[in-house]
Amino acid sequence: MRTAGRVARLRERFDELKVDAVVVSSEANVRYLTGFSGEGWAVIDGETTLVTDGRYTLRAEREAPGLQVVCRNGSMRDVVVDRLKRGGATRVGFEADHLTVNARNDLKRGLRGIGLVPLAALQRAARMIKDAREVKLLRQAIAATDAAFGAVCKDLAPGMTEVDLALEIERQLRLAGADGAGFPSIVAGGPNSADPHAEPGRRKLRLTDNVKLDFGGVLQGYHADLTRTVFLREPTRKQREIYSVVREAQRRAIAACQPGVLGKDVDAAARDTIREAGYGEAFSHGLGHGVGLEIHEGPGLGHTSQDVLQPGMLITVEPGIYLKGWGGVRLEDIVLITPKGCEVLTKAPKLDLG
Amino acid sequence: MRTAGRVARLRERFDELKVDAVVVSSEANVRYLTGFSGEGWAVIDGETTLVTDGRYTLRAEREAPGLQVVCRNGSMRDVVVDRLKRGGATRVGFEADHLTVNARNDLKRGLRGIGLVPLAALQRAARMIKDAREVKLLRQAIAATDAAFGAVCKDLAPGMTEVDLALEIERQLRLAGADGAGFPSIVAGGPNSADPHAEPGRRKLRLTDNVKLDFGGVLQGYHADLTRTVFLREPTRKQREIYSVVREAQRRAIAACQPGVLGKDVDAAARDTIREAGYGEAFSHGLGHGVGLEIHEGPGLGHTSQDVLQPGMLITVEPGIYLKGWGGVRLEDIVLITPKGCEVLTKAPKLDLG
Repeated sequence: MRTAGRVARLRERFDELKVDAVVVSSEANVRYLTGFSGEGWAVIDGETTLVTDGRYTLRAEREAPGLQVVCRNGSMRDVVVDRLKRGGATRVGFEADHLTVNARNDLKRGLRGIGLVPLAALQRAARMIKDAREVKLLRQAIAATDAAFGAVCKDLAPGMTEVDLALEIERQLRLAGADGAGFPSIVAGGPNSADPHAEPGRRKLRLTDNVKLDFGGVLQGYHADLTRTVFLREPTRKQREIYSVVREAQRRAIAACQPGVLGKDVDAAARDTIREAGYGEAFSHGLGHGVGLEIHEGPGLGHTSQDVLQPGMLITVEPGIYLKGWGGVRLEDIVLITPKGCEVLTKAPKLDLG
Repeated sequence: MRTAGRVARLRERFDELKVDAVVVSSEANVRYLTGFSGEGWAVIDGETTLVTDGRYTLRAEREAPGLQVVCRNGSMRDVVVDRLKRGGATRVGFEADHLTVNARNDLKRGLRGIGLVPLAALQRAARMIKDAREVKLLRQAIAATDAAFGAVCKDLAPGMTEVDLALEIERQLRLAGADGAGFPSIVAGGPNSADPHAEPGRRKLRLTDNVKLDFGGVLQGYHADLTRTVFLREPTRKQREIYSVVREAQRRAIAACQPGVLGKDVDAAARDTIREAGYGEAFSHGLGHGVGLEIHEGPGLGHTSQDVLQPGMLITVEPGIYLKGWGGVRLEDIVLITPKGCEVLTKAPKLDLG
């Protein structure tokens, strides 16, 4: 089973982490370590046990065939505590950046004498580096996303509402082979595009709009992420100028993507370009992030990120310029870090405005 | 501003909670108390401050016009700590069932001498009772969901895949006036319907299938929730039998819905019906839950729920029978508790199989 190696590597770190068991509670880590995509926790000591409930029994049997599956009737806490005690655990690691204060206290009361060890960013480092199967799934999700972009562009016309377009994107994602949209699609026209995370509304697209589309398909849990800004007619001088700055910022950032480089230095390559063009204040978010079982995961590509790029990482590179009242432009590609540099996996076309 | 009264009522509880400020971190509570639907935290002492980031500046100004909005560049922690110190807080409440162990520890380090007070289920009791505007929005979301059900039923035919149908549901939800689907739609045909929380797959519907549909529109953050099980031809004797038991269980549970009744007693009304029919083991989840800014919120309607029904509550009533290999039947309506009993808000038709 493909997840067995991941669990084995985690177990090898038990001494270093000073634990003899780990409770995994976050959805993405449970899925990474067991293959199970429903709601539940995993308990890992000498064995691996998946604790879920009656809603997910059949899915657990299907997705995690080699594991012990316990379908709880009562509280998650009671089943997990019982399991840990029977396993003889003495120091139990938990996800301190996922488990809530109350859930941790509840677990502690149940475990009595057994120690609870807060673990930070469990599996973050492991999940940052994708294996061959993960890269394949991500390539497929990205290709489906690119195909959906191509399909919706054909139909793009003034008069469509943002929500209509968002819906069409989601339909095209499924037609292109994705399981669905991995996050709520952003469709923002005209002044709405100045809002980096706009929600699609009832506003109708106009001929003069910047239309910002940010969406992505998900495939077996793996997330693509694409942003394009498109124009419904020949762009104005200002639209061309802003678009060109963003495109150049992205180009320089991608050129900086190679093993050994810090996340903040890739961010700086884009940020400096935008600042030099006089729009520094208008790039109000980090440059990008890793993608995988979560739409946002390690490494970070913000202006303080100390993450070091390594082969096998997939990251978004998404600079933007947002001008209140006027609108915004963002371009986002996904890049795979390779031993010698990087490969841009996103193939959706961009405008070449010189 | 409509949220001001909610904040005022929370402030009135500060003495009882032994705090002079509260940090609100959960999305639904931030929205409930400020109107803001993006990512951010609210700090409430004598004033209310919304802390978000550059991605949401415009949305915050639009949705929370009366509030102080701080767009952070650095960490959430630093801005919140600074704000609390300047406000002179001495005991700060936080959402102990939302904030992670790490986030709480980080906040504590920043606050140094200032006390941190864990609060459980902040706003749960307040949010359980809907005000007139909330009931109106929920009625609209439910009506859109019913309309979408009617529309997809017209097209239902063997050969459609589950994912096709899920996509069509989401399209119809928007056409019917919802902002979108409030949660991933469940479409499960034939044996897949035995899985209470099945994900739609590539399986094609067959003439003999039970087809279980569980979906709901969301409107301005308020969630509808509907389950129907439909047949593509005249149901078999077994399908009729199971459907009738579930329908009778739901009928008895709804008859039990009135002010003063415990959640567990409503659950029991359905569960006893199903047990008497010989299918007790096959009803593997709680009877229902409150709906509102979250798809699952208080009150609970599980077999141990001590929540007391009160006028203004909206709850789902959703018994089911799931038989591995054969399939499942679930029916779900939303019910509004009224001063004298209840009103079934869901109007989507059910089969009358006597």
